[in-house]
Amino acid sequence: MNAENFGSSERLVAAAYVRQGAQGRRGHELLLRALLEQGKCPEDGWDESTIELFLHELAIMDSNNFLGNCGVGEREGRVASGLVARRHYRLIHGIGRSGDISAVQPKAAGSSLLNKLTNSVVLDIIKLAGVQTVTNCFVVPMATGMSLTLCFLTLRHKRPKAKYVIWPRIDQKSCFKSMITAGFEPVVIENVLEGDELRTDIEAVEAKIKALGAENILCVHSTTSCFAPRVPDRLEELAVICANYDIPHIVNNAYGVQSSKCMHLIQQGARVGRIDAFVQSLDKNFMVPVGGAIIAGFDASFIQEISKMYPGRASASPSLDVLITLLSLGASGYKQLLKERKEMFSYLSSGLKKLADTHNERLLNTPHNPISLAMSLKNLDENNDVAVTQLGSMLFTRQVSGARSLVNGTFSEVKDRMFSHLPSLQLLLLNSNSFTVIRDDAFAGLFHLEYLSPFFLLKMY
Amino acid sequence: MNAENFGSSERLVAAAYVRQGAQGRRGHELLLRALLEQGKCPEDGWDESTIELFLHELAIMDSNNFLGNCGVGEREGRVASGLVARRHYRLIHGIGRSGDISAVQPKAAGSSLLNKLTNSVVLDIIKLAGVQTVTNCFVVPMATGMSLTLCFLTLRHKRPKAKYVIWPRIDQKSCFKSMITAGFEPVVIENVLEGDELRTDIEAVEAKIKALGAENILCVHSTTSCFAPRVPDRLEELAVICANYDIPHIVNNAYGVQSSKCMHLIQQGARVGRIDAFVQSLDKNFMVPVGGAIIAGFDASFIQEISKMYPGRASASPSLDVLITLLSLGASGYKQLLKERKEMFSYLSSGLKKLADTHNERLLNTPHNPISLAMSLKNLDENNDVAVTQLGSMLFTRQVSGARSLVNGTFSEVKDRMFSHLPSLQLLLLNSNSFTVIRDDAFAGLFHLEYLSPFFLLKMY
Amino acid sequence: MNAENFGSSERLVAAAYVRQGAQGRRGHELLLRALLEQGKCPEDGWDESTIELFLHELAIMDSNNFLGNCGVGEREGRVASGLVARRHYRLIHGIGRSGDISAVQPKAAGSSLLNKLTNSVVLDIIKLAGVQTVTNCFVVPMATGMSLTLCFLTLRHKRPKAKYVIWPRIDQKSCFKSMITAGFEPVVIENVLEGDELRTDIEAVEAKIKALGAENILCVHSTTSCFAPRVPDRLEELAVICANYDIPHIVNNAYGVQSSKCMHLIQQGARVGRIDAFVQSLDKNFMVPVGGAIIAGFDASFIQEISKMYPGRASASPSLDVLITLLSLGASGYKQLLKERKEMFSYLSSGLKKLADTHNERLLNTPHNPISLAMSLKNLDENNDVAVTQLGSMLFTRQVSGARSLVNGTFSEVKDRMFSHLPSLQLLLLNSNSFTVIRDDAFAGLFHLEYLSPFFLLKMY
Amino acid sequence: MNAENFGSSERLVAAAYVRQGAQGRRGHELLLRALLEQGKCPEDGWDESTIELFLHELAIMDSNNFLGNCGVGEREGRVASGLVARRHYRLIHGIGRSGDISAVQPKAAGSSLLNKLTNSVVLDIIKLAGVQTVTNCFVVPMATGMSLTLCFLTLRHKRPKAKYVIWPRIDQKSCFKSMITAGFEPVVIENVLEGDELRTDIEAVEAKIKALGAENILCVHSTTSCFAPRVPDRLEELAVICANYDIPHIVNNAYGVQSSKCMHLIQQGARVGRIDAFVQSLDKNFMVPVGGAIIAGFDASFIQEISKMYPGRASASPSLDVLITLLSLGASGYKQLLKERKEMFSYLSSGLKKLADTHNERLLNTPHNPISLAMSLKNLDENNDVAVTQLGSMLFTRQVSGARSLVNGTFSEVKDRMFSHLPSLQLLLLNSNSFTVIRDDAFAGLFHLEYLSPFFLLKMY
Repeated sequence: MNAENFGSSERLVAAAYVRQGAQGRRGHELLLRALLEQGKCPEDGWDESTIELFLHELAIMDSNNFLGNCGVGEREGRVASGLVARRHYRLIHGIGRSGDISAVQPKAAGSSLLNKLTNSVVLDIIKLAGVQTVTNCFVVPMATGMSLTLCFLTLRHKRPKAKYVIWPRIDQKSCFKSMITAGFEPVVIENVLEGDELRTDIEAVEAKIKALGAENILCVHSTTSCFAPRVPDRLEELAVICANYDIPHIVNNAYGVQSSKCMHLIQQGARVGRIDAFVQSLDKNFMVPVGGAIIAGFDASFIQEISKMYPGRASASPSLDVLITLLSLGASGYKQLLKERKEMFSYLSSGLKKLADTHNERLLNTPHNPISLAMSLKNLDENNDVAVTQLGSMLFTRQVSGARSLVNGTFSEVKDRMFSHLPSLQLLLLNSNSFTVIRDDAFAGLFHLEYLSPFFLLKMY
Repeated sequence: MNAENFGSSERLVAAAYVRQGAQGRRGHELLLRALLEQGKCPEDGWDESTIELFLHELAIMDSNNFLGNCGVGEREGRVASGLVARRHYRLIHGIGRSGDISAVQPKAAGSSLLNKLTNSVVLDIIKLAGVQTVTNCFVVPMATGMSLTLCFLTLRHKRPKAKYVIWPRIDQKSCFKSMITAGFEPVVIENVLEGDELRTDIEAVEAKIKALGAENILCVHSTTSCFAPRVPDRLEELAVICANYDIPHIVNNAYGVQSSKCMHLIQQGARVGRIDAFVQSLDKNFMVPVGGAIIAGFDASFIQEISKMYPGRASASPSLDVLITLLSLGASGYKQLLKERKEMFSYLSSGLKKLADTHNERLLNTPHNPISLAMSLKNLDENNDVAVTQLGSMLFTRQVSGARSLVNGTFSEVKDRMFSHLPSLQLLLLNSNSFTVIRDDAFAGLFHLEYLSPFFLLKMY
Repeated sequence: MNAENFGSSERLVAAAYVRQGAQGRRGHELLLRALLEQGKCPEDGWDESTIELFLHELAIMDSNNFLGNCGVGEREGRVASGLVARRHYRLIHGIGRSGDISAVQPKAAGSSLLNKLTNSVVLDIIKLAGVQTVTNCFVVPMATGMSLTLCFLTLRHKRPKAKYVIWPRIDQKSCFKSMITAGFEPVVIENVLEGDELRTDIEAVEAKIKALGAENILCVHSTTSCFAPRVPDRLEELAVICANYDIPHIVNNAYGVQSSKCMHLIQQGARVGRIDAFVQSLDKNFMVPVGGAIIAGFDASFIQEISKMYPGRASASPSLDVLITLLSLGASGYKQLLKERKEMFSYLSSGLKKLADTHNERLLNTPHNPISLAMSLKNLDENNDVAVTQLGSMLFTRQVSGARSLVNGTFSEVKDRMFSHLPSLQLLLLNSNSFTVIRDDAFAGLFHLEYLSPFFLLKMY
Repeated sequence: MNAENFGSSERLVAAAYVRQGAQGRRGHELLLRALLEQGKCPEDGWDESTIELFLHELAIMDSNNFLGNCGVGEREGRVASGLVARRHYRLIHGIGRSGDISAVQPKAAGSSLLNKLTNSVVLDIIKLAGVQTVTNCFVVPMATGMSLTLCFLTLRHKRPKAKYVIWPRIDQKSCFKSMITAGFEPVVIENVLEGDELRTDIEAVEAKIKALGAENILCVHSTTSCFAPRVPDRLEELAVICANYDIPHIVNNAYGVQSSKCMHLIQQGARVGRIDAFVQSLDKNFMVPVGGAIIAGFDASFIQEISKMYPGRASASPSLDVLITLLSLGASGYKQLLKERKEMFSYLSSGLKKLADTHNERLLNTPHNPISLAMSLKNLDENNDVAVTQLGSMLFTRQVSGARSLVNGTFSEVKDRMFSHLPSLQLLLLNSNSFTVIRDDAFAGLFHLEYLSPFFLLKMY
């Protein structure tokens, strides 16, 4: 309804009431305006009504929704199924152009706005979460691993001779594959045990760089968020080394946005040394469906180079999801989630400690890992080898999904390399909700608590 | 998006593309404007995108959707369930005020517009369907029968002495109940057989009026749409009698809007005599869910009196359904449906005739009934009494629902009165789709074809 | 997915995972089963996923959703618009048959289940809210006023001589109109002032009954929920009088379900005397869109008689809304709302008292009214007559909608009768949220607080 | 509703009606079953009701929708926003595992089924569209270009020495970038002019292979669908060369599924020579939102190798879209679209020819290009250089979007390489709908007609 239409409405309904209605509309418009002008996540979340109005407004700016449009050519946003059109709010054109996934599409002003705003709002949230000096980021509709691959492929053009990626070991398959797929050879740096913690072996990293020659190394590939007893990499020291040897540094921050410690590590690394890009998962940090990642960094032009490497237009679906989510939570809602996660973590830690004591096990002392806990399972293990895996399925049948109980010395194969799982450790994930369950089962074990966030307390819709 | 917001968008997306998007929006706005200014059903149907935008715009004009509104009082449009809010497009206030179901609500400019526009668009369609001189109508969220009751209750205040309603018999329970519920005594006028047709006994009507005294008669209650071999009442003659004796005349036009003949009868009756109101079903004429009716007439103030009799605010749901439907069909879409129904009817008639001949039965000759056909089932009946009812269930199990096969002399009880079903006739409804089925079953029967419209060929969603 | 389909799925996905999925389905099915078997509101609310699955399951039981169905006849659940079909979850057949709004429809097993379950769940909630001995109720898609009309019309058949309805005065237009529309003469019994409260004049009621003759009286029409300084009627005494004189008793309980005191009055009235039916609004008590009411009573067969008076099938929309809402809240959710409303009321009462003191006004002492408060506005009134109405619009522009500020001696016309508004009292509705606003305006006044419920704190969707 | 629940329903609704409802359900279940057992696109499209039921059924098999599930770990399908949950039908887990994008997820049986069925149905459609001997394919949520990149990255591991990709030139940016991003050097083979057609220079390809050495060549990268006057590559000859020299062959079939000629070329190439994979766009061939591609091939294990290269779980959104679309069209609906496109193409061709004659221009004779047409613009060009680009914007403002009018000798830069646009040719896309528009403007020009399909005649929803 524009001014003329409100005017015409007064033919049917008293002018005073129509004016009131126009005032009501104005309230929603002001929210949109603030978003468009500032490009920031609104402090307070929007209600569904405002969000849907906004998406509807974007959609009718796209040429596929022009009335009477005669789309010719191969990129016209045709949709055969009404179910499909509706679930995408009729935003069909995706994001980006063949030249650049962050670019604007002439035929799709609405989808282009969506893309720009999403990247802008996400950038704001990354700052808010602790990386204040980040300068550029973009959402890409690919897994974290594939997004890391894209970073590596971009670096190849800058370092044509490089063959190796220096990689402090983390036992997660897609991290490893991200380098393999890009065509590089991962140089695994084993971690060192400090107390209960597995930490980055800084000296080994530096030694390896010297041995291989900096120019042969594509980059250092470090990790923040991980399962205890491994802890986040020593990002500051790694960043300094990268600066010193002029080696790019890519950080896998998969589920680290929700932890102020992980974000602080990145901020510090960038301050004292070199970090070229850090990559995070959308689903894990923003509670959206699987399928997107954020590639962020401190040198805007390098981030743009990465965005220009994606050949073709891409799915807008992950961008749409994260934008809806952040608009509905608002900055305050997101900060509240971060706060609650921290409280929950310390609550769980003390609870687990008590449990471990009861069963003559030990909660590992891993203070550098802000999101994961681990507990020994030695009694269980010694008595019965099968027991550990059974523990996992016991938890599952008791509706606790996502826990990990690992037998000592398990091997997993990734592209012809054998990794042994963390020696003499069995891991298990759980959360506060499952306390009772586990106590009732009275096993002796090692618990691994990760992602202790209010995030999993949110009801599913 | 208002002009300012489009302006702000140019910060993010090239001005030329934003202008294009604003142009796109303009297209939708112009459709809305024409509707608001003319209050007519648009000639061409709107697409879903425009309809949803329109409903969204209406909703944010209602106070329950004002941001930051603090609703106190008992009428604030509160909604506990998001599922419910969404399915009503957040239009929660219903229609009307305690004083008048057609009145505007101060707190709900959007819902009020919806109500006014619906009644206006429906009025336009009634004219288009053949009653050009209709002056007022309103959608009421009640069954046709209950709507007739409301008409009778309104007449009571004008004719305090009246006890009787003159009613040319039609064997449909809720017609009868509409008078009983209103507290009046139906005076049943049996129809006369002319050829195969059961037609209004005009002389009996006039005789009964004289016998009872006009002042004791609330109104004549006539019917258009009905099952063959009954045919629509002789509305012209009835209307003239009503004018002569100064008796109100209420027409039950339940599913007659889709038949130009039924509508013509009403137009003619009003031209030469008296018709106070005619009532039609929403679901049967406009393919919406059950639950609404239209009360229409030629004296705007009498129709308004009826609308003022409804005590309280009412459900907007049927109004919303019919408005969405008419906007999506457009006047041209509705006219096309009317045209196809006619063609289908003559096609079916010739087909049924052939079928009847094959089985030594007879398609009754009922030229005055434009929507229903009947066929004898005498062979079936004479051979086996159970056979007729079995025929009905045979059809049902063959996915032909809605057919009627009636045994001679069935009785149905309505509030202590016994009606025998039409003597020596068995009725069955079917449609062109079921031809094959029925021919295959090779029974000898009497078919009753009603509502042979493209309406039932529309796919369900 | 039935057992066979789960079996077939194992061709594609490991049997163990499929079994797990089947288990997941089982969880939802068990909830459905409990509902079907017990017909009660589940203690814990269902999530949207379960509710939608349930509605989908109901829909495919209706013949309009049978694949390949060939609907003939006038009642086939045809829908022209996909938007309309979806918003009704493809439940198109409405509720009831021409004979009875509570009856089952052969062609619509799903819609019939919906109707039965809704009435059953609502009955459960009425018991839970305090009327434990209620035996029957049904949801009717009409306003509370029109539903009262239907009750009066039903009574007419039992009391053919009766002309009058005894009605302790309440200044709400549709209450009055409900009797007028039904064709009866309201006999207004003025209330008496006891302290600050306006209470039922029991003696005047009895005197009037004697004067008119019990057989000439259709019923007593009493009220529970109302605005202070009027308080709920003395239901016990009225019920005893009705029993003694053998006069039916219909209670207008419009927004009383949420108040345990109102519900207790009804329970007590039925225990010691006679209450034939009590009628309540759906939107006011269950936070659904406007348009439905519940007619309930203690004699199941009388309630069924009322349901048989509705001529025709009716809209399922209000039933659907209330069922979705109660399933999503659960009994515990509804009880929680009731509890919070009470707490809020006493909080507001003490706050308002303080405000009144500050401005040299008085919070009226109306302990029998559990949902509404009133405050004097005498300073405001004496200084400036216009001020009182201005106060109302000031509140509105400050986003406080629904407040009432009434000037002494205002008159409202209903069907040729003049009511003066409550003498020497000015009323205003507000809620705790608007405290600051009002204090800032520093007026001296009389506040009228009604509906102080957590209900209005619920966010709109 | 399972058998027990239907049983319980008989408490409320007559058993006969419930049985009917159960029968109705059975109809939908049988469709699901056929899909699960055969894994083929159903011949007739499903209605929305069946599709939504199916998706709902899949969703409740995923652990995030288990009632009472306590998700711990980082992969639990948490969703913060109801809007987001609903638009994905609560299928949140995405597709694949870190090891393989086609793999089954233990926690998400429903999403896994979705993934398997989509790939299976899409395989069926590829066969139906003409590549009968295809053995494996998968949907990947990436652009066609990025999907080609993934193919090249997979080949790298098989051909570690290879640096070059042999590429018959096509002027489309993302084709070129797909090789650059993967880190390979495109070796551009200029096409030869045969009559009006630009065709593959087979001899130049073979000469280049010999010059570079087969072992240094990663693959031949050919193209089917393209703009006239270029025509699809000579796939048979290229496939034979690849077989002879043992060089992999990747075909860019971006929008070729809808053309039986393009599909036939692939089928023939595979029969007589070597094709390792062919890649097609989802949006262009299946009218879904931008963002997905299909990677298909004749050696199932090689296709699986590619699917194992994607590091991480991926978005299910493109898979969901294409599955919904194919289920709703059915195989017959898709075939009908293919047929109409062909008819439309010949209609347009003859129309354009007439237009060209009128303006003294020439419709180029490009019989090998089944989807695109080109027309000269020589008069326009000679008279006024600006005119050609103006023509494009004239068409756009006349609502014809997607047309291309190219000035002779335009250059576009891709990663430091300069391509001149096709010498002495100006291109323009249009469709039959825009005929009138163009004739009215009476320009003399060269038209380029592509994608003349019923596809663009489908109404947007």
